[in-house]
Amino acid sequence: MKLVIAIVHDEDSHQLIEKLTEADFSVTKLASTGGFLKSGNTTLLIGVQKEKVSEVIKIIKKVCKTRKQITTTTPMIGDNSNYIPIPIEVIVGGATIFVVDIERFEKI
Amino acid sequence: MKLVIAIVHDEDSHQLIEKLTEADFSVTKLASTGGFLKSGNTTLLIGVQKEKVSEVIKIIKKVCKTRKQITTTTPMIGDNSNYIPIPIEVIVGGATIFVVDIERFEKI
Amino acid sequence: MKLVIAIVHDEDSHQLIEKLTEADFSVTKLASTGGFLKSGNTTLLIGVQKEKVSEVIKIIKKVCKTRKQITTTTPMIGDNSNYIPIPIEVIVGGATIFVVDIERFEKI
Ligand code: NI
Ligand code: NI
Ligand code: NI
Repeated sequence: MKLVIAIVHDEDSHQLIEKLTEADFSVTKLASTGGFLKSGNTTLLIGVQKEKVSEVIKIIKKVCKTRKQITTTTPMIGDNSNYIPIPIEVIVGGATIFVVDIERFEKI
Repeated sequence: MKLVIAIVHDEDSHQLIEKLTEADFSVTKLASTGGFLKSGNTTLLIGVQKEKVSEVIKIIKKVCKTRKQITTTTPMIGDNSNYIPIPIEVIVGGATIFVVDIERFEKI
Repeated sequence: MKLVIAIVHDEDSHQLIEKLTEADFSVTKLASTGGFLKSGNTTLLIGVQKEKVSEVIKIIKKVCKTRKQITTTTPMIGDNSNYIPIPIEVIVGGATIFVVDIERFEKI
């Protein structure tokens, strides 16, 4: 057995848990927050048979892949009758994955 | 040294921490929630000497064993002067336990 | 790769994350609370190359070392016009550190 510890962005965690559960993996969600000046990370624990680790990682990569998102700027406070929103690209997604060996596993 | 990662139900966590502490084990409680559509799990980290792992697991099994609980149905809103509560059985308890090898342990 | 799991006191966690980040380590902060009758612990996950483990532990020891702090007693409610605060020593700091081997590490 292996333990997959996945640190993902909050906005991806719901869909990731759904996809992993559909694929019959058992997921525990820990409340977490990012490090200094970062926020919004979720840590998931997934206990999995050795030969299924790659499948789990594949699902995480698919759901959490970094991608560009188009967002638009919002006007400052004040007169913005002539405001033209400017589309800007932001990077979202990403994940950190640790795979650790489990010496003993019990489900009661 | 081994690290026991125990994911237990919230309702068992208080008693489990108490029993483990009484048996001289040091427990760290992480805030956690269950996976998709599940809720109310707590994750505990217990650092323990190799030869004590079975003792820890025995305590977890004792406190968190799945058991049937009799609960009674509650009446719907409205006139329930003739309501007869029906006893129903629910399964409570259960735990997932991962034991991981610790390569280095420091307490400062 | 190694995973350093550090359980530190809340009051040290901000400075520790800052110091580790400055030293180019990537830190994930998990929300956590202490065991029975204890409170205010934070768990940090730090993924790190094998040869950097000692550097991480050195930083943790420096920031989280147990030390005496002088605090003063505060008066009870009521007439305290003659109250003389008494300086008392309290022990703060401390940490529990687990180092675990990572079999596979992915950053996406
Ligand atoms: Ni990120
Ligand atoms: Ni359960
Ligand atoms: Ni302490």
